[in-house]
Amino acid sequence: MDLKNYVREIADFPEMGRSYKDITPVFHNYSTLQECINLFTQHYESWDLDLIAPIEGLGFIVGAPLAYNLKTGLSPIRRPGELPGPVRWVEFEKELDSVVLEIHDDSIKAGARVLIVDSILATGNTSLSAARLIQEQGGEVVGFSFLGEIKKCRGRLKLVDFPVYSLIQFED
Amino acid sequence: MDLKNYVREIADFPEMGRSYKDITPVFHNYSTLQECINLFTQHYESWDLDLIAPIEGLGFIVGAPLAYNLKTGLSPIRRPGELPGPVRWVEFEKELDSVVLEIHDDSIKAGARVLIVDSILATGNTSLSAARLIQEQGGEVVGFSFLGEIKKCRGRLKLVDFPVYSLIQFED
Repeated sequence: MDLKNYVREIADFPEMGRSYKDITPVFHNYSTLQECINLFTQHYESWDLDLIAPIEGLGFIVGAPLAYNLKTGLSPIRRPGELPGPVRWVEFEKELDSVVLEIHDDSIKAGARVLIVDSILATGNTSLSAARLIQEQGGEVVGFSFLGEIKKCRGRLKLVDFPVYSLIQFED
Repeated sequence: MDLKNYVREIADFPEMGRSYKDITPVFHNYSTLQECINLFTQHYESWDLDLIAPIEGLGFIVGAPLAYNLKTGLSPIRRPGELPGPVRWVEFEKELDSVVLEIHDDSIKAGARVLIVDSILATGNTSLSAARLIQEQGGEVVGFSFLGEIKKCRGRLKLVDFPVYSLIQFED
């Protein structure tokens, strides 16, 4: 089964002239949801992870079953105002906007082996900023995991210091 | 293991004078994450569900492992602007604000047995509105599932036509 066949291109989203890769059909079909979580689980089952840090929102849909299968904890990385406890935050540029991500400040033990999970790798800015949230608390970012990767955006060049695993590769 | 011991009260969130139940420690500890997903799975494994519809954002963290374990599909219910395809939407009142939720319009087959999953049941307004998104497409809402339930808010009275299952009950 080629997971890529379950990704649909949506024209003019999020704005006119853009094209967007909609990965929700991968989750909508039970068999592709099974395959995607099984592939991630097989890839990481020998990695001795302590924690999955998935990025809001579709990152949660990949990250939570993976944390369950690997018997790790999970600490969500969220948009501002969503996490009620004391947070650590990071601000970065994304498509000319300024974006802030937050994580609970007491959520990473020193030396914890943390995998960051997101839905799509594009420029890598979001991923690198998420890594800072982990590293500043003394956690070790042992890798990045994505359902899809848009190769034209060259995000892997930004993440060259880390192992990166993606299930579906798009040229652009 | 009492899951309630892993919920922490946060004072003055989301605004001064309020108190908020932070359920993220349930996910942060791998053993409580396991227990919570196992309890949901045991409860629903004989229900012959077709689809899990989890509500953004922590609803995804409960709903996705449950869909994986039960071998169902998953269709996320999200805030406006997050779903790229054609959507069906519903607007409702929540704490004096107007809130909109969306679902992909082609995501529910007629007669599909759908379970709605959210993190916390309070007044039930969000849940009932989510149910409309399913029912208007011809799906059958066979129940609601929550990690926590705030009994003082009497959400069950609004959802009296449906089976409601929650893992943790709070008086207020």
